[in-house]
Amino acid sequence: MPQTADRNRSIVLQQRPHGAPDAATFSLTETALPAPQEGQLLLRTVLLSLDPYMRGRISDAPSYAAPVAVGAVMVGATVARVVASRHAGFAVGQLVLSYSGWQDYALSDGTGLTVLADDGHAVRALGVLGMPGFTAYMGLLDIGQPAAGETVVVAAASGAVGSLVGQIARLKGARVVGIAGGADKCRYVVDELGFDACIDHRAADFAAQLAAACPAGIDVYFENVGGAVFDAVLPLLNSKARVPVCGQIANYNATALPAGPDRLGLLTRTILTKRIRMQGFIIFDDYGARFGEFHAQMSAWLRDGKIKFREDIVDGLENAPQAFSGLLEGKNFGKLVIRLASD
Amino acid sequence: MPQTADRNRSIVLQQRPHGAPDAATFSLTETALPAPQEGQLLLRTVLLSLDPYMRGRISDAPSYAAPVAVGAVMVGATVARVVASRHAGFAVGQLVLSYSGWQDYALSDGTGLTVLADDGHAVRALGVLGMPGFTAYMGLLDIGQPAAGETVVVAAASGAVGSLVGQIARLKGARVVGIAGGADKCRYVVDELGFDACIDHRAADFAAQLAAACPAGIDVYFENVGGAVFDAVLPLLNSKARVPVCGQIANYNATALPAGPDRLGLLTRTILTKRIRMQGFIIFDDYGARFGEFHAQMSAWLRDGKIKFREDIVDGLENAPQAFSGLLEGKNFGKLVIRLASD
Repeated sequence: MPQTADRNRSIVLQQRPHGAPDAATFSLTETALPAPQEGQLLLRTVLLSLDPYMRGRISDAPSYAAPVAVGAVMVGATVARVVASRHAGFAVGQLVLSYSGWQDYALSDGTGLTVLADDGHAVRALGVLGMPGFTAYMGLLDIGQPAAGETVVVAAASGAVGSLVGQIARLKGARVVGIAGGADKCRYVVDELGFDACIDHRAADFAAQLAAACPAGIDVYFENVGGAVFDAVLPLLNSKARVPVCGQIANYNATALPAGPDRLGLLTRTILTKRIRMQGFIIFDDYGARFGEFHAQMSAWLRDGKIKFREDIVDGLENAPQAFSGLLEGKNFGKLVIRLASD
Repeated sequence: MPQTADRNRSIVLQQRPHGAPDAATFSLTETALPAPQEGQLLLRTVLLSLDPYMRGRISDAPSYAAPVAVGAVMVGATVARVVASRHAGFAVGQLVLSYSGWQDYALSDGTGLTVLADDGHAVRALGVLGMPGFTAYMGLLDIGQPAAGETVVVAAASGAVGSLVGQIARLKGARVVGIAGGADKCRYVVDELGFDACIDHRAADFAAQLAAACPAGIDVYFENVGGAVFDAVLPLLNSKARVPVCGQIANYNATALPAGPDRLGLLTRTILTKRIRMQGFIIFDDYGARFGEFHAQMSAWLRDGKIKFREDIVDGLENAPQAFSGLLEGKNFGKLVIRLASD
C-alpha cells in the first residue's frame, strides 16, 4: 500500500490508549487529495519523524501542549516535497521541513515551513539538525553546563537525543557514560560515538555497574527516561549536579503511580542537601530564538566529522503505529524515521 | 542556673535521636573555664541562634555538612562578648558574631569572627541581618527571581526566613501568599508583614484555601517545609515556576519514607511538563561572596522601615533543647534565639 499520486492516506487517533498504544489506538483513513487555494501549497510527505513526545500528545493528561483530538490526524515533523503551489514563496519540487503529521499529503499556507537543500541529507532536519539535536544541544549546554573533567550521564545513549548529548559533552571535555538497552547499542555508543563507557540497563546489576563507571559521581544527568535509570542515578549525583529534564520515556505508558514508599520528599531532600538544579524544558518554547546558533554550531561539527549519528528508517506510513510502539519500548536503534516515499 | 563567671556550661549531643529529639538527645555538662593561649581570645555567649538546619547536624544521614559527633558540643551561631584576649585584633568588652555553639564560653583564634556594634541590635546578626536573612534574600532573588505581578508562596511565613522572603517579594512587586500555623501567626503575617494573604496549614481544607488564594497559580514557591504544604503547592505551580529548595522541616524528624504510591516520577514529570526549575542551595557555600551585597541592601531596607521582623527570645541555655524541639514543631513565633545573659 504505497504512497499514490491521487489519494491521501492519514493515520488518525482512533482512541486514547490506556497504557501502551495498541491496535485500537490508531487507524488509517483514505481521502481524496485536497486542492490548494490561492496562497496555499500542497505537500507530499517523504519522511516522517517519530519521537517520544508523541506519547504525550495522544494522552489527555495535562501537559505543555494540547492533545491530538480523537479522530484527528496524528501530528509530527516531516520532510515533504511541494507538489502544487499557489504560494509565491514556494515552487513545485522544493523540499521543505513541515509539520504535516502522519499522512501522505497536507495543505500549508507556508507558515513554519523551512526550505531544505535537496542534497540527499534532508533527513538530518528531523534529527541531528532538527528538534532532537536542538534538544540535546540546549538542554546539555544551557541547563547541564558540563565543565571539562566532569562526569555526564545520559540514557537512551544510542538514540536521537542521547547520542548527541554524549558527543557534545565529550567535545566540551567531559567524561561521558551512556546507558542503553543491550550489548549492540552499548558497543556502538562506545566504539562509534566515543563515549567513555556505556552500561546496559537490562543488566541485573545495572545500578552497581553504573556506580562503578562513575567513580567520581555524576555532575550532569540528562534525564530522558526516568524510572529505574533515575533511581540508579539519584544516589550518585554530586553536590551542585545539574539535571536537565527532557523526557521520561520509561513512564509514558504507565497507567498508575508505582507502589510506595513515596520518595517525593526524598527527591526534594536530595535536591536540597546536594544543592541540585533540576530543570524541565520544552525546546522550542524555551529556546526557539537560539535555533540559529545551534544549527550553525552543529553544522560545523558535522562538516568537521566531530559528530556521528544514525537513523533507523522504517518504510511505509502504515508501519508508523508499530514503529512508534517499538520506540516507546526502545526497539529502535538511532533516530526513528518513517519513509513514505523514496523522494 | 544562670551563666557564671567561672564555669562553662555546655550542651552536648548525648545520643542521636530516632525521630524527634527527646530528653535523651542532649545533656548539659559543666567544666572549668578554658584559658586563652597567645593568639586566642575567650568569648562569653550572650545570644544563641536556634535554627532548623541543626536537626540535620544531629543526624548521621548523608548531608552537606559533617554531623556533630556524639559527646561533642552542639554547634550554633552566637553573639558573644570578648572576656579575655591574647589576640591583637580583639579587645575585651567587644561584641562579636561567633560560632561558639550551645555553651557559655568558647575559645577562638579569631577565625570567622565579625565584630558587631554594641548598639542593642546585635541580635539582628542572628536573624534579619544574618544567616536567615541572607538565606531568604539569595534564595528568593537569585533562584526564585520573582517578577512584578507574579505570585510567590512561602511557608513558615512568620518565621525567620519565611517572613523575610515574603516581604522582599512584596518589595519586588509580587503578590505574596504566606502559609503559617494558626490564626495568630496568619494575622501577623497579613496585618504586620503586609502579605496579601496567609493560609493556616492546619485547616482541614488547607489545599482548597491555598488554591483559592492563588487564582493565577504559583510562580515562585520558596520551599522550606515540604510535606503536606508541598503537596498542596505542586498542582498549583505555573509553567516556568521556580522552586528554591531551602529546607524541609516537615520531614526532618521522619524515621521512614511515607507510604506510597511513589510520587517521585510524578514530581519529575511535573518539572518536565511545566518546565519548572527546582534548585537546592546552602547559603554560605553557594553565596558567601555576596554577603556584603545582602547586608548593605537589608540594612537600607531596615533603615527605611521597609522590613519588619520579630524575635522569639527564650531565656536560659538549659532551655535550648526544649526550645529546639518546639522549633521543629512550629511552636516558636519569629526568629528563635536563646538569651544566655543580659549583656
